[in-house]
Amino acid sequence: MSAPINEPAATLVVLDLAGIFVFAISGALVAVRKELDVFGVLVLAGTTGLGGGFLRDVLIGATPPAALADWRYLLVPVGAGLLTFWFHPALGRMERSVNVLDAFGLGLFCVTGALKALDYGLGPVPAALMGMVTGIGGGMVRDVLAGRVPTIFRGELYATPALAGAFLAVLGDHLDAPLFVTAAVGGGLCTVWRLLAIWRHWQAPVPTGSASV
Amino acid sequence: MSAPINEPAATLVVLDLAGIFVFAISGALVAVRKELDVFGVLVLAGTTGLGGGFLRDVLIGATPPAALADWRYLLVPVGAGLLTFWFHPALGRMERSVNVLDAFGLGLFCVTGALKALDYGLGPVPAALMGMVTGIGGGMVRDVLAGRVPTIFRGELYATPALAGAFLAVLGDHLDAPLFVTAAVGGGLCTVWRLLAIWRHWQAPVPTGSASV
Amino acid sequence: MSAPINEPAATLVVLDLAGIFVFAISGALVAVRKELDVFGVLVLAGTTGLGGGFLRDVLIGATPPAALADWRYLLVPVGAGLLTFWFHPALGRMERSVNVLDAFGLGLFCVTGALKALDYGLGPVPAALMGMVTGIGGGMVRDVLAGRVPTIFRGELYATPALAGAFLAVLGDHLDAPLFVTAAVGGGLCTVWRLLAIWRHWQAPVPTGSASV
Repeated sequence: MSAPINEPAATLVVLDLAGIFVFAISGALVAVRKELDVFGVLVLAGTTGLGGGFLRDVLIGATPPAALADWRYLLVPVGAGLLTFWFHPALGRMERSVNVLDAFGLGLFCVTGALKALDYGLGPVPAALMGMVTGIGGGMVRDVLAGRVPTIFRGELYATPALAGAFLAVLGDHLDAPLFVTAAVGGGLCTVWRLLAIWRHWQAPVPTGSASV
Repeated sequence: MSAPINEPAATLVVLDLAGIFVFAISGALVAVRKELDVFGVLVLAGTTGLGGGFLRDVLIGATPPAALADWRYLLVPVGAGLLTFWFHPALGRMERSVNVLDAFGLGLFCVTGALKALDYGLGPVPAALMGMVTGIGGGMVRDVLAGRVPTIFRGELYATPALAGAFLAVLGDHLDAPLFVTAAVGGGLCTVWRLLAIWRHWQAPVPTGSASV
Repeated sequence: MSAPINEPAATLVVLDLAGIFVFAISGALVAVRKELDVFGVLVLAGTTGLGGGFLRDVLIGATPPAALADWRYLLVPVGAGLLTFWFHPALGRMERSVNVLDAFGLGLFCVTGALKALDYGLGPVPAALMGMVTGIGGGMVRDVLAGRVPTIFRGELYATPALAGAFLAVLGDHLDAPLFVTAAVGGGLCTVWRLLAIWRHWQAPVPTGSASV
């Protein structure tokens, strides 16, 4: 058994907040591009940063979600949203860097999401699925609120690395590996795979002749 | 009281899985038409097949949903999604057959959804509503993720048969009718009504002059 | 501590139902404009009227939501939806009045939402956030289902007054103020601010040069 995620080590909290921060910036950038007002920017920052964890917590019955039990979790997306609101031209130019950081957030979330689901009694396959949902859920909610089909359905590989990383986390937990090793191996696989996908433009296969159905 | 849905007879499980399968195919076909990649196809298959039950379970507090407690429930939409991904031209040509099977899934879900809500202590009217949500929720989530207004808001009668079938299921439970009879009468009414709606192009009334408001 | 919201005084129930009614009409009007059928009108009426409370209750773990435990709560949006379906030309012409009533609903929901979240053990900041979610959630779900970016992300101030009113409600609870005073001050601030925003066309700031990012 890994240490309970509900009392994570300080390192894990810092990493978690960093992941929320990066995701929130990606949400806020979408809002700026859609010409939403400052409130829309903050909501998209919040839902992108926290949405995946909320979805997971609601589905596994871990309510209220951690982010609602600790107000510091709410400060991070607000900060990311305001930062983007004021400095979006600079942040927009750094989009490549944002995508790289986003890959680290994805690697982190798929691991912590899967481990939390295991802690709540889910089996290995559903727990891995919940890890993936934690990683991709925020971006899906962001895109639905911004009025577009989720980009993860079409662009470079995103969900597959998250699912693979989550499965490794479940495996690590099953083998009683130390939390640090589990997080490093699972999160590392996800992040490296995602970075390679960005770099090499790897995409998931598309149905043949799908436009003509 | 009907038998608890949490320990359904093997027949009911098979029917449930069959309903999820058919719904998942309808979701995967929408994804193919939207030219989504294989992951988008799988997510739309999963949310369409399982979304209605997830919505119901989250609202009535039955978390984690059954599909997350039993990994076999997750295999079915994955299978339906891959099947559609590879054989969508054939499946697309069989859309009429898919719609017919979908009507059976709808009849099944509105009954099992209403009975599960009753088991969790909801009153008759909210339980019937939850039965309808179980039947129509997956298709609504599918359409929102695919970036279109839910088709059940505009096309041939869909939700009304589901609500009627769910009410009959609640009534059957109230009269202590055997589960088999309740399911046959409630699900039968829903399925037959839906099939007639497809065949005769029955539509729900539209507000008069709505375009000119 | 305020009186438990679960056993609210009759006045509060009547106010709550009135708020649901007004929100439901705004949802039904959107459905009519989108040329949805009578079922789409009823669903948008229901999700707009009840969606904010459902979101809050699912997030704080108060399931099933109050509206599913008391069938009278379901009657109100059905009534509002049918009324709009039949008399939408008249209601459409009264949109300004509907917006004014909507401001009262918003003031009420942000207060009751925040107080209920406090009752379920949330801290002051998350409780205020839940108050805002109760006020704005229904409209967000309405817009997503109707296929448009939520109007509260772009139009006249809506969420900020709700958040401010919710914070006042939390403060009133903290100071052990009588429920009536808390509701009047918090809800009053929200409603007056919102009415001024409509009247004076106050909008939230938009990122500079957002279209050119």
